[in-house]
Amino acid sequence: MRILGIDPGSSRIGYGLIEDGGSLSLIDYGVLEVKEKTLSGKILNLAGQFEELLKKTKPDLAGIEKLYFAKNIKTGIEVAQSRGVLMLAILKKKIPVLEFDPTQVKQTVTNYGQSDKLAVAKMVKKILNIKELAGYDDASDAIAIAIAAAFSKKWSLPR
Amino acid sequence: MRILGIDPGSSRIGYGLIEDGGSLSLIDYGVLEVKEKTLSGKILNLAGQFEELLKKTKPDLAGIEKLYFAKNIKTGIEVAQSRGVLMLAILKKKIPVLEFDPTQVKQTVTNYGQSDKLAVAKMVKKILNIKELAGYDDASDAIAIAIAAAFSKKWSLPR
Repeated sequence: MRILGIDPGSSRIGYGLIEDGGSLSLIDYGVLEVKEKTLSGKILNLAGQFEELLKKTKPDLAGIEKLYFAKNIKTGIEVAQSRGVLMLAILKKKIPVLEFDPTQVKQTVTNYGQSDKLAVAKMVKKILNIKELAGYDDASDAIAIAIAAAFSKKWSLPR
Repeated sequence: MRILGIDPGSSRIGYGLIEDGGSLSLIDYGVLEVKEKTLSGKILNLAGQFEELLKKTKPDLAGIEKLYFAKNIKTGIEVAQSRGVLMLAILKKKIPVLEFDPTQVKQTVTNYGQSDKLAVAKMVKKILNIKELAGYDDASDAIAIAIAAAFSKKWSLPR
């Protein structure tokens, strides 16, 4: 089973694809960068890139981070609009999607809900048995979300 | 030229369709109600209803309210996610879309940026030469947005 984790953002959207075949292995990860300036341009560009990604990665399950909080309301609104676009693309393809609080992801991956990025990245590498994750903080978070989805679907998979 | 005004929301989305042929006339208005409970259900249901509305109303131009502010962040995030879904549907149909601050809409329709709902509704009826608008505050706001788009496109229409 292929699981795609998504870390939503307004101009940088991290993704991580893992395969769950008893143990978990990393297949692909990266960041979609949206460079358009206008809101209309951003939305169309993101939708296009993300639909391409779904076509390429063919996930059986998606995990995405919930938004509750924003440092400032303007950024929060931009990220939430992008998240609506991402959710719609997933749902139109009838891919089941699980939503997680950031603390749930940290709790699942590191056993501690307040872990920092470094601790999350370290456990992600350990769980997937890899030495290095090139660059991209956002991608490491996205992979952690995919792992959280893998662990949680063993308990229940809403359809 | 047919202009669709949209007042975004998470569970109630107002719309107003006007025809601009020198003077402005009201063609249709109403509210899309999203009754699903889950976020996934809401997004899919809204996208379906709104795509139907675009098919039915065939607008040449759309106007939609910007979000800057939310009484609470949870509501703001929900409305913003819905707005992303609405914007994407408009953009995919290559309908030009103008975005307005609430104060811009009030300023254009009533000549005063801080007007209350009642003053806006009164001017909307006067501009469109109608006696009554049945129900729906949200629809009256949406019609005001369509009027703002009609007035502003006389100055410039970004493509």
